[in-house]
Amino acid sequence: MAEIHVMISSCERNVGIATAIRRKPVLANFTSKLQQTMADEDEVKLFGMWASPYSRRVELALKLKGIPFQYVEEDLSSKSCLLLKYNPVHQKIPVLVHNGKPIAESLVIMEYIDETWTNNPILPQDPYDRAMARFWAKFIDEKLLMTARKVSFASGKEKEQVIDEITEQLKLLESELQGKEYFSGPSIGYLDIVASVLVFWFGNVQEALGVDMFTQEKFPIIFGWIGKVFEIDAVKECRIPKEKHLEYIRTRLEALKSASK
Amino acid sequence: MAEIHVMISSCERNVGIATAIRRKPVLANFTSKLQQTMADEDEVKLFGMWASPYSRRVELALKLKGIPFQYVEEDLSSKSCLLLKYNPVHQKIPVLVHNGKPIAESLVIMEYIDETWTNNPILPQDPYDRAMARFWAKFIDEKLLMTARKVSFASGKEKEQVIDEITEQLKLLESELQGKEYFSGPSIGYLDIVASVLVFWFGNVQEALGVDMFTQEKFPIIFGWIGKVFEIDAVKECRIPKEKHLEYIRTRLEALKSASK
Repeated sequence: MAEIHVMISSCERNVGIATAIRRKPVLANFTSKLQQTMADEDEVKLFGMWASPYSRRVELALKLKGIPFQYVEEDLSSKSCLLLKYNPVHQKIPVLVHNGKPIAESLVIMEYIDETWTNNPILPQDPYDRAMARFWAKFIDEKLLMTARKVSFASGKEKEQVIDEITEQLKLLESELQGKEYFSGPSIGYLDIVASVLVFWFGNVQEALGVDMFTQEKFPIIFGWIGKVFEIDAVKECRIPKEKHLEYIRTRLEALKSASK
Repeated sequence: MAEIHVMISSCERNVGIATAIRRKPVLANFTSKLQQTMADEDEVKLFGMWASPYSRRVELALKLKGIPFQYVEEDLSSKSCLLLKYNPVHQKIPVLVHNGKPIAESLVIMEYIDETWTNNPILPQDPYDRAMARFWAKFIDEKLLMTARKVSFASGKEKEQVIDEITEQLKLLESELQGKEYFSGPSIGYLDIVASVLVFWFGNVQEALGVDMFTQEKFPIIFGWIGKVFEIDAVKECRIPKEKHLEYIRTRLEALKSASK
């Protein structure tokens, strides 16, 4: 699949919103192999950023369901007027715009996608299984990723403590995955898509930071799952290019260090 | 409605889990006026804490849907074995236990309740409206309440900045509510239940902290909504007793200050 990343950068308040809106995103050349139930008049746009695991998970959900969409790449250092218009509260990606109506927050977007396009459900059908999927998704976003962020700023003993904390959190996920093909059961689903941050992002961040906590030896079940997940075409298409990502993380870390001096 | 708050305190590891389990919670004398579709054999327990807005929102959701439940009051300074068993990841209330199966995290519990007992739906039916309700619920929990927590620790100029931040966040909610009877539309629903933290908790915390940002003058629409919400019986039943709450907050603040000295 060839993907066109369209960059809409800078709000250009002086030029006005009208000009920015005229810069229309180009339709990504996405041909789904999966059945798709979308009406022809549906217009789906995803405002994302190539290195964001939150953006990548929405992309993956759309691809797994076979929903054609326009992908709009945002320059986060100079956000577009459209992004600010569509997500005035957080001013963040990802934002899904469906027939002109914007939805922000990746977990909210994924629920919307599953409820709007009911083919290839990503959430389980049983209410208890759905609750468990939502519980672990919150755990990944509010615990694991929040702790992972702390590593960048920590040093010495504090860094060791943060790494211990992440290790404990990953052990909980390892245990949740035990005896299953995927987090969602026999096939990839909602929680796998949320956990895709471990596939797309976690390893690269660890490498850039020079830490060594997330290894196959320590987490054989999670690494087994990563191997399986990577066999899926839609996942391959969403992979974050490693060298570009490493360079991006290192540049960001340098900027953060300079800013805190 | 007479409610029995059963206190199960202390894990008593020396005594063992079996003893703690024998301390059975007493069935709350709850007779619903609303239609309820629950099977007789359903057993629903809520592990909560009287001063927690997260616990109160689950209680309110159960009451609005007319689901009989046992309420188990937890002593958070000495958590019960049952709580640790049912929520080993976070070791926090609220936990809903339905026929022996535990669910943690108030927003996850509310979705579970709505999907399991489909009478008196609390979430809207339309996927976009559902997405908006979830978006604002996340905003209340991850922005407003997180900012509100900072007030306790801040002083001087920093405190002023935090108060400005909360004011901006409350303005966004005020604007979201404009032109509506309730957050959820013409009747009380999911987002109103989540926002009930403004009804049950926010005013008392503000009073105990001696700040003055959340007033009828500044937020006439939110205060109008609070007035309407308080006319609902189930809401009245979930109200946190003011004087007891003020004393509780002041004691906690003193403890926090002593700990940070």
